[in-house]
Amino acid sequence: MKNSLIAVFALVTLFSIGCKTLVPQQSTAAETNAIFPKGELGPAQNFTGRAWAYGLVADDTVYNTLVGNVYFEPGARSNWHIHPAGQMLLITDGVGYHQIQGQPRQTIRKGDVIKCPPNVMHWHGASPDRGMQQIYILPNTEKGIVKWLHPVTDEEYNKAD
Amino acid sequence: MKNSLIAVFALVTLFSIGCKTLVPQQSTAAETNAIFPKGELGPAQNFTGRAWAYGLVADDTVYNTLVGNVYFEPGARSNWHIHPAGQMLLITDGVGYHQIQGQPRQTIRKGDVIKCPPNVMHWHGASPDRGMQQIYILPNTEKGIVKWLHPVTDEEYNKAD
Repeated sequence: MKNSLIAVFALVTLFSIGCKTLVPQQSTAAETNAIFPKGELGPAQNFTGRAWAYGLVADDTVYNTLVGNVYFEPGARSNWHIHPAGQMLLITDGVGYHQIQGQPRQTIRKGDVIKCPPNVMHWHGASPDRGMQQIYILPNTEKGIVKWLHPVTDEEYNKAD
Repeated sequence: MKNSLIAVFALVTLFSIGCKTLVPQQSTAAETNAIFPKGELGPAQNFTGRAWAYGLVADDTVYNTLVGNVYFEPGARSNWHIHPAGQMLLITDGVGYHQIQGQPRQTIRKGDVIKCPPNVMHWHGASPDRGMQQIYILPNTEKGIVKWLHPVTDEEYNKAD
């Protein structure tokens, strides 16, 4: 009888372990769902931390629109920059920040839509603890694409809303 | 001993059932992941079946761009239509179809990017068995938004690639 009980215990334990490996765990800090490939690491002169860029629509004279996906790892952010024709961001997963010069930092999340007007200095990136997936849309590219500026300091990045 | 074996069998069965309820099942027909709210049901005069539209960026004279999300339930599709300035589609989940007049029907899936040139007749929608989530981008809206045409027939919809 004792042996049988040990067998029961062993089997139940085994199945419990089996369950755990099959059940998805609570999302950890860095995890976000990807729709598109990760792409290429953004250049260090334009980003703090690791941001991965994947082009979706190349600029041309038919659509005059540039579209792409950026995955910011936790803590990563763009430099301050300007889009001559403005920018729209669709946040598809995770949590991040966006700040327009002279305005408080905004926390942005999956499902948010952000507009940054033409010729306004801004930055965007992930929160310290969770990455962020964003689709960017640059319209009217005949007016220009982007002018990269200086990095976002740790003080700017960490200043709460 | 016999009773103990029955107990082992019962417990293992119980844990197996427990596992099954916790483990995500293979996606069923209608399931797709939503990033944005479902929005409003598209009007019956422009769609066959049920398509849900949610606006993301309203048209204005700063960005000249209209952005939104459409969730097509399985079997649902748009009418044939024309965009005077063209359209870009980002497929964010599920499986669907896209067809440009005079070309074969394309099967489109999560991660695909579709361009439909200005003034070209086209339609898009879900596959019969799985819904489709898409983000649409209409650029250069000063040239016009959309001209709705006739429904896609079942024969057109079902004609394989």
